[in-house]
Amino acid sequence: MNDARSYVPPFQIGEPLQGDCVGVVVESRSPEWQPGDRVGSLLGWREHYVAHASALRRIQPGPAPLSAHLGVLGMPGHTAYVGLLDVAALKDGETVFVSSAAGAVGSLVGQLAKAHGCRVIGSAGSEEKVRWLLDEAGFDAAFNYKQQSPRDGLKEGAAEGIDVYFDNVGGDHLTAAIRAMRPYGRIALCGMISVYNEGAPSPGPDNLLMQSLIAKRVNMRGFIVFDHMARHGDFQEEVGRLLAEGRVKDLETVADGIERAPEAFLDLLRGDKIGKMLVRLGPDPA
Amino acid sequence: MNDARSYVPPFQIGEPLQGDCVGVVVESRSPEWQPGDRVGSLLGWREHYVAHASALRRIQPGPAPLSAHLGVLGMPGHTAYVGLLDVAALKDGETVFVSSAAGAVGSLVGQLAKAHGCRVIGSAGSEEKVRWLLDEAGFDAAFNYKQQSPRDGLKEGAAEGIDVYFDNVGGDHLTAAIRAMRPYGRIALCGMISVYNEGAPSPGPDNLLMQSLIAKRVNMRGFIVFDHMARHGDFQEEVGRLLAEGRVKDLETVADGIERAPEAFLDLLRGDKIGKMLVRLGPDPA
Repeated sequence: MNDARSYVPPFQIGEPLQGDCVGVVVESRSPEWQPGDRVGSLLGWREHYVAHASALRRIQPGPAPLSAHLGVLGMPGHTAYVGLLDVAALKDGETVFVSSAAGAVGSLVGQLAKAHGCRVIGSAGSEEKVRWLLDEAGFDAAFNYKQQSPRDGLKEGAAEGIDVYFDNVGGDHLTAAIRAMRPYGRIALCGMISVYNEGAPSPGPDNLLMQSLIAKRVNMRGFIVFDHMARHGDFQEEVGRLLAEGRVKDLETVADGIERAPEAFLDLLRGDKIGKMLVRLGPDPA
Repeated sequence: MNDARSYVPPFQIGEPLQGDCVGVVVESRSPEWQPGDRVGSLLGWREHYVAHASALRRIQPGPAPLSAHLGVLGMPGHTAYVGLLDVAALKDGETVFVSSAAGAVGSLVGQLAKAHGCRVIGSAGSEEKVRWLLDEAGFDAAFNYKQQSPRDGLKEGAAEGIDVYFDNVGGDHLTAAIRAMRPYGRIALCGMISVYNEGAPSPGPDNLLMQSLIAKRVNMRGFIVFDHMARHGDFQEEVGRLLAEGRVKDLETVADGIERAPEAFLDLLRGDKIGKMLVRLGPDPA
């Protein structure tokens, strides 16, 4: 275990779980809100709650289901958007590698890169996910990192190297990506799920690989979505449009009931499920 | 030995040594050049040569000695300037760490950061160099990495952490700098002299350290000065002014005669000499 596992405080027993939530207004004493309005909040995972009108954020009506606002149109989508377009400064036509590619963030990274005319290679942890990437999400190449090392997967799927790596995994994935980087490549460091539960430090990229960042002029940058809220409008506009046009697919796994939350969380860490992992606390309102 | 040691082709026996040179015009058949004009070129290390007028670059007359145009006003200075101000995006008042701080590049990095109101800590390989950094170059802290590890040196000299690391060394220096990075820190990867002669890859930063780049939003970027020639005028203006004002000191070691070149090169790699290492091929013309 290490103290760098998360940048949010640990959950407290007896407190509601924290995290982004969506729902609908049931009853309102504020002129700002009407029953049926769609809302998002960070007020805890609850079946019902009473909140001040100003504590809620409005989710505009639209064709996407409410749950999409926790995934492709929510914080994971926003993370993918700013990580790929701003942090990694994607240029049309480049070659992009994304790990955890069938996850909430990675699945949008790859589809967004495709929408920008890029060649996209993804890694995921099951044959089912690899099939989804190739058959549904339009990835050009994908490999199962439980069957093939990231180094071999990249050699096969991106023989000419990569311009951008969107890192959700760290460890061997990051090392292999540095090796495969082309000149002027960019690495957006978003998450390192392979490292979160490390008991002791494991070897990262060796010094020769670190040195290669100079001759290749690579830019590697860690980011957290909260620093990029100014781009929320652009993100909603572009990804909302791609979703409506069917050029981006939402991907989610839903666990029913709060009692399923621990299992869902462990599934997420094990990579057993595909897309955004959601927990539904009551009947689906939208 | 490794194939990533340099981004320039190896020297060829029988050919003149390559590298930046300065000198004066002795005789001219071009109206563009008059005897006594100061020139720079990449036409090989030679006592005399005949060149086309267009193959030379003009070194404007000024108070600085000609040799400064190979150091603080030459490519090393330009490297320091763009690495610190553009690649590392220095902000006034930050804390800056530079390795190989008594070298051609590092000595300007530190002095330039001081001129921008920063706190500066440097590492170097001898007590003489550490003294120069503290007594002559105005560094706030300095340590001898042959006596103290970079990790301990930074703990002592930059207990609050660093905002910028200008890396000339790689290896333990880079690892220690990542550990000491403050939120939103930047690392400019300029050179990794500790790695150049590695026979086999040595361990770089471990995966937990790599992960820390995310929560700290660190930006690490490799660069080569040739991509930044558009800033040459700004660099000449600012560093020329600081030099004239005595706020930046030039630092050089001169070896006399081409037959001293191999020894000078080995001295450079061993870190035995201070400042820009120059080889003088004839009587000093300026």
